Amino acid sequence: MKGAMLYGPRDIRFEERDDPKIIHPTDALIRVSAACVCGSDLWPYRGIQEITEPTPMGHEYCGIVEEVGSDVTSIKPGQFVIGSFFASDNTCPHCQAGYQSSCQHREFVTTAQASMLRVPLADGTLVATPEIPADDLLPSLLALSDVMGTGWFAAVAANVQPGKTAVVVGDGAVGLLGVLSAKQMGAGRIIAMSRHEPRQKLAREFGATDIVTERGDEGVARIKEMTSGIGADSVLECVGTQQSMMQAIGSIRPGGYVGYVGVPHGVALDGEALFFAHVHLHGGPAPVRRFLPELIDLVWSGKISPGKVFDMTLPLDQVAEGYRAMDERRAIKVLLRP
Amino acid sequence: MKGAMLYGPRDIRFEERDDPKIIHPTDALIRVSAACVCGSDLWPYRGIQEITEPTPMGHEYCGIVEEVGSDVTSIKPGQFVIGSFFASDNTCPHCQAGYQSSCQHREFVTTAQASMLRVPLADGTLVATPEIPADDLLPSLLALSDVMGTGWFAAVAANVQPGKTAVVVGDGAVGLLGVLSAKQMGAGRIIAMSRHEPRQKLAREFGATDIVTERGDEGVARIKEMTSGIGADSVLECVGTQQSMMQAIGSIRPGGYVGYVGVPHGVALDGEALFFAHVHLHGGPAPVRRFLPELIDLVWSGKISPGKVFDMTLPLDQVAEGYRAMDERRAIKVLLRP
Repeated sequence: MKGAMLYGPRDIRFEERDDPKIIHPTDALIRVSAACVCGSDLWPYRGIQEITEPTPMGHEYCGIVEEVGSDVTSIKPGQFVIGSFFASDNTCPHCQAGYQSSCQHREFVTTAQASMLRVPLADGTLVATPEIPADDLLPSLLALSDVMGTGWFAAVAANVQPGKTAVVVGDGAVGLLGVLSAKQMGAGRIIAMSRHEPRQKLAREFGATDIVTERGDEGVARIKEMTSGIGADSVLECVGTQQSMMQAIGSIRPGGYVGYVGVPHGVALDGEALFFAHVHLHGGPAPVRRFLPELIDLVWSGKISPGKVFDMTLPLDQVAEGYRAMDERRAIKVLLRP
Repeated sequence: MKGAMLYGPRDIRFEERDDPKIIHPTDALIRVSAACVCGSDLWPYRGIQEITEPTPMGHEYCGIVEEVGSDVTSIKPGQFVIGSFFASDNTCPHCQAGYQSSCQHREFVTTAQASMLRVPLADGTLVATPEIPADDLLPSLLALSDVMGTGWFAAVAANVQPGKTAVVVGDGAVGLLGVLSAKQMGAGRIIAMSRHEPRQKLAREFGATDIVTERGDEGVARIKEMTSGIGADSVLECVGTQQSMMQAIGSIRPGGYVGYVGVPHGVALDGEALFFAHVHLHGGPAPVRRFLPELIDLVWSGKISPGKVFDMTLPLDQVAEGYRAMDERRAIKVLLRP
């Protein structure tokens, strides 16, 4: 079997790897129908996150179950399934509370840019679609594995409410799907902070009512101006830098909610500033598993099409070009077909 | 009229000040029935917060309305009233959202350790009791002006739920009233983190089911041990130091809620640690005005007695001894009678 391996900064190779096998009786083997490159894959790709040895890549996936371990009861060979980037047992206290990405037995899936994939804790991780989907649904179903679930969690954590104002910081795939999530939850006004024309366009298609191109203090001033000096009810922070976090916190009204899903890199928050902002702050790795059944329904019934964030599709053997396109911002998100 | 003035570190004097007068038509003048010394008064008293000129002190108060400005309609001379440390108009968007301590026209009350007090924005700030209270209710009514409302807000922000586990970090008056608030909201288990015997006793009286004396990482380990490794559902952070904030965040379960009301001094939060803790974080200066009607009812009907935190009562002219007693931790909280 062949899959993607990262050897070092900007050195992705598509090469022969051992075929995955059932190791634990709770595992499932999946024939990957579609995988993709994540914004977070770019951290090690760019050398910002160190790689000490050749490392398989990929944590977003959907596909056909090929084989299941002897303890697996809810998933059968032949089903089309989607799972989260964190495998979870879905029974521990953290899972039961809806935080499957903090599962006491969680395992990060790291080998999904390949034709075959072993998924641990299959019963608690994978959710099957009603039947085998048509090919045109694949991108939207694949998006549920991470970016759509993450954008959705940002909107849930930001307490998006019907008729209220939501601001989205970040115009990557997650931010764009944060816009779609806020729209789906009925936000009355959705302000996307973006300075890239093609992304602004998709943001509008997903439901953004306003675009703000300013950043940092200027961006905050613009949001305040647009909300009669009050601030936004909800802010979805989908980047993870110091600037984006401060932009989010600065844009909120007292008592408003910031949902943050961009993995923070070098972010430090001043306690006193947070205190006087009166902000509700919640975020973390999205508990995608919590949302999968609902999101599969929404995609299946045609109510949402998160797959639109994939603006480039490549055969899996061209995975290196996929990374390059995202690194150079030529693509928002790249779908890979084995 | 005489009142308390801070001249510099540990130099409080009781001396003649100008009589307060109605300045704006929205003001009220109050004959102070009881005032007190706040934990936060100790920051400038200890010289940690600089004082550049003699400064009147005091922001907790209740008393009889003596005179009202021409625009005041909801409060009448002769009524017994309680107000928050932040005067608020109670009509602006932030007030309407329940964040009166972020009122667009808020003013900090700073001259309450005196026999007479001018309260700005009287209609939006003061709440009258059903009638003139008996003397034995005074301590509990006075507590509503700040500490009880602040402990209550900590419990609200920490999302205390019936039957669930709440941890209270800090055994000052606010922490102890956080215990009382958690009890009133039906928490099943209330763990007070305290190493001072008299305060442990009062915590138990207010409803604490467990006492933890360890602090920092040891305190966190103890809470994890007591909650089967899961962590607490709610943590009330009532101190405001780096250690107390980390203790609170470390003690929470993924998806749990930290309510923080201790004014942060030199606190910096690491974004990545917050992210992976999956914590809900909310706090700030308590919007006491939001809770005053409900809390007055609870005191009036004898359901809560927050006044028990006052373990020393002094005539106002001995205010300096009141500061000394709290500074030396001989008293939890000192009530002053003009």
